[in-house]
Amino acid sequence: MSKHYEALLNQLHKINDIEKAMAVLQWDQETNMPAMGAQRRVQQLTTLSEIAHTMFTSAQTGELLAGALEEQAEADFDSTHASMLRVTQREYNEQRLFSAEFVSRKSAITGTAGAAWAQMRADNNFADFKKHLEAAVAIAQETAEIRTYDTEPYDALLSQFERGMTSAELRRIFDEVKRATVPMLQAIAQRSDRVDDTILQQAFPVAEQEAMCRYGAESIGYDFNRGHLGEVHHPFSTSFGRDDVRITTRYAPDYAMSSLFGTMHEAGHAMYEQGIAEDLDRSPLGEGASLGIHESQSRLFENQVGRSLGYWQAHFPKLQSLFPQQLANVEVADFYKAINKVQPSLIRVEADELTYNLHIILRFELEQALINGDLQVADLPTAWNDKMQSLLGVTPPSDKQGVLQDVHWSQAAFGYFPTYTLGNLYSAQFMESAKSQDPRIEQELAQGKNTFLLAWLRENIHQHGNKYDAAELCKRATGKSLSAEPFLQYVRGKFGELYGL
Amino acid sequence: MSKHYEALLNQLHKINDIEKAMAVLQWDQETNMPAMGAQRRVQQLTTLSEIAHTMFTSAQTGELLAGALEEQAEADFDSTHASMLRVTQREYNEQRLFSAEFVSRKSAITGTAGAAWAQMRADNNFADFKKHLEAAVAIAQETAEIRTYDTEPYDALLSQFERGMTSAELRRIFDEVKRATVPMLQAIAQRSDRVDDTILQQAFPVAEQEAMCRYGAESIGYDFNRGHLGEVHHPFSTSFGRDDVRITTRYAPDYAMSSLFGTMHEAGHAMYEQGIAEDLDRSPLGEGASLGIHESQSRLFENQVGRSLGYWQAHFPKLQSLFPQQLANVEVADFYKAINKVQPSLIRVEADELTYNLHIILRFELEQALINGDLQVADLPTAWNDKMQSLLGVTPPSDKQGVLQDVHWSQAAFGYFPTYTLGNLYSAQFMESAKSQDPRIEQELAQGKNTFLLAWLRENIHQHGNKYDAAELCKRATGKSLSAEPFLQYVRGKFGELYGL
Repeated sequence: MSKHYEALLNQLHKINDIEKAMAVLQWDQETNMPAMGAQRRVQQLTTLSEIAHTMFTSAQTGELLAGALEEQAEADFDSTHASMLRVTQREYNEQRLFSAEFVSRKSAITGTAGAAWAQMRADNNFADFKKHLEAAVAIAQETAEIRTYDTEPYDALLSQFERGMTSAELRRIFDEVKRATVPMLQAIAQRSDRVDDTILQQAFPVAEQEAMCRYGAESIGYDFNRGHLGEVHHPFSTSFGRDDVRITTRYAPDYAMSSLFGTMHEAGHAMYEQGIAEDLDRSPLGEGASLGIHESQSRLFENQVGRSLGYWQAHFPKLQSLFPQQLANVEVADFYKAINKVQPSLIRVEADELTYNLHIILRFELEQALINGDLQVADLPTAWNDKMQSLLGVTPPSDKQGVLQDVHWSQAAFGYFPTYTLGNLYSAQFMESAKSQDPRIEQELAQGKNTFLLAWLRENIHQHGNKYDAAELCKRATGKSLSAEPFLQYVRGKFGELYGL
Repeated sequence: MSKHYEALLNQLHKINDIEKAMAVLQWDQETNMPAMGAQRRVQQLTTLSEIAHTMFTSAQTGELLAGALEEQAEADFDSTHASMLRVTQREYNEQRLFSAEFVSRKSAITGTAGAAWAQMRADNNFADFKKHLEAAVAIAQETAEIRTYDTEPYDALLSQFERGMTSAELRRIFDEVKRATVPMLQAIAQRSDRVDDTILQQAFPVAEQEAMCRYGAESIGYDFNRGHLGEVHHPFSTSFGRDDVRITTRYAPDYAMSSLFGTMHEAGHAMYEQGIAEDLDRSPLGEGASLGIHESQSRLFENQVGRSLGYWQAHFPKLQSLFPQQLANVEVADFYKAINKVQPSLIRVEADELTYNLHIILRFELEQALINGDLQVADLPTAWNDKMQSLLGVTPPSDKQGVLQDVHWSQAAFGYFPTYTLGNLYSAQFMESAKSQDPRIEQELAQGKNTFLLAWLRENIHQHGNKYDAAELCKRATGKSLSAEPFLQYVRGKFGELYGL
């Protein structure tokens, strides 16, 4: 190891330690912290974040990086050494773009807007939220200018979350999803009586739900020896290093399945982090390649595994033993149908596998217009409701169930929502490739197991951490660029059969 | 506020943020972390500790401090301003004594010795632990030389935990405790059949124990809005700032009272931290004055309140309602006797209120001899067993139940144990003064309440945080220097009555 590289790595390790310490503080904030502790916690996080940012963007880091790049003998793109320098250099250049003044101004604007959103969503008060959202759009536009872009400002925002993806490419793919999904939904609406999910709407005791969630996470391969399941209001997963990757869930006493599928979703994210190669841990390479790839892992385990007939043929008896009163007399085939019911609805986070992407496409289209200046914040509620009607055939009775439902825009996180649908598309493409490369995967899935699938993901996705861009990773794993086709084929097959289309 | 002072305070706040972040990581380590997460956690803590130490001992801090001291107009010893500079200056001088080389060498020695201790205690293997303990003694001796001292090296170690206390003063006080306690114990041994505690040794379901512990902590004034009760192997309390002070306990399924009294003990510590004045928070003044004073608060609530007849006359019905099967037919007077049974035993952490101090005095006497070089580590097991026999009349059947029982010496924490007995003595002296200053306190205690007692402690102890040395604080609160007399009077009264002496 060269001298500069070694010193750089040492610096990166320490910065990563601070970032992971912040992750612990944030996790604790959601799981255990008394509300009164919030003020000091913000101060602690602010201080750590300042220290990490200062260390990373320091002239010292720049010199070590330059020295290490100069010393670099080999140019093997795939090596940890070359990848570390490539990724660090890119991160360094990006973070250096932003002045401390800008960072703290943005943080103040989004802090205020986030708090305003919580209050004004509760009050169904878009009129007073408007000015906060305008400020968030303006700071996002400023962010885009600082990051720079070739053709449209939205590209600069998108690339914060999905490096290398462009607005034009996304429009092409999302339009394909939209064109295929909307008529499918109309056909399903004619046959909605084919699937009944009332069996899911019963009282399910929380203690048994917890046992069920632990069982569910373990059954798909989440490693509890390097993990932990906690309870929160807004579930998430987080990593403090590959050997301590935690998941959280929320228990609804009268609807058990949301805690289970939520757990499988977070376990999918967490298994990605648990599978990153050991030598990438504690560095900028020790994380997922993009939010879209991360979401592919959560959606794959939540939906393609967790909502499959094979899984439940194997595991439904366990569920029945936990909830004999609720499920003893239910057939697994009916249960499988119930958990896959398609039903256009108002709220994104409650949407089924098919309508979910339309919620995202709606946001994607509105975001571009806001950032380009084609849509004013004042006109947003009407634009939202019109799009809900044309895409999903439903109209929100209030802004609370419409434009005010998500926190993200108040955080100026424009360009973030598309990664959810990208995750769905990637997951289907990965699954298709995995099955074709290893026939044992399909056999196992039919028996409710996924050890070979997980091995394929470990080998092709997880171990690489943040070495490659999403597009590169997709090409290496599947031989092709991202396409909507595998996803559309998957939903056509699954819901075609369920609804007899 | 002067310019230098303001800048210094800003620096101290950030350092405190890092230290509190470390406290969160340590808390999580004991409560939630999967074992596999330990390696990364150590790295995270090491990095944060290095950053905090570097920031605090930097030339920049020194300059701000010097500037602020120069600008200081007023010299009001009691003001936050003057106290902040005084305490920071002292801490700065002390921390600057130690080179980075020494800190990391000491940390390596105690890290190795701590791990060796855990293994060798389990194996009852003093022979192999010997060399680790010798290294710990040597590094403690080196610490004493670096800290410097007037008459004996043990003073320099003691003052790490109890600023201003000397070995000579401690010997005088502890000898008084010993002279009074040993004959009392002999008299009690003749009447041991007067107290029967078999009712405590039953199965007590853990869920109800948890409810009991929450009730117990709340009943004495612990504020759950700024707190949290967790479960761990080795209970402790910790502060992340005065508005998030946590307690932990451990549940023994067949002996309920240890979780309750442990909770009251930790709640006593935590109420101290919750009561520190707001303007001292986030600084070197925002912590307890010394370990002895801290322990006085835990022991006061665990013993003088929690093991009092008044408390149980009021709260025993609640306990009976939680454990009807175990306690419905028990008289409160018998319960009160049972929780106060005196019984010489081998293990410090299980000792009763009267024998506890003899366990401490034994360690105090052996520690001084080890540090002075009068006792060799090789001769320690024999010296331990001889002292156990002469002080408590029992001899450990194995080193595991003797000299190997505590982790502290492997951590080179010589000078630490005495603070436990200091806590007992301070607690009695504070209680005596509180009662004489406010007669409502005794009335309330007889009814199982302690709002006036807590108000007295807030006013005289808690709010001052780390502004004063223990001796100063004691003098201000009680008008006198520390004396063993109030404690001896308390135990003579309480156990004299219980055992009819």
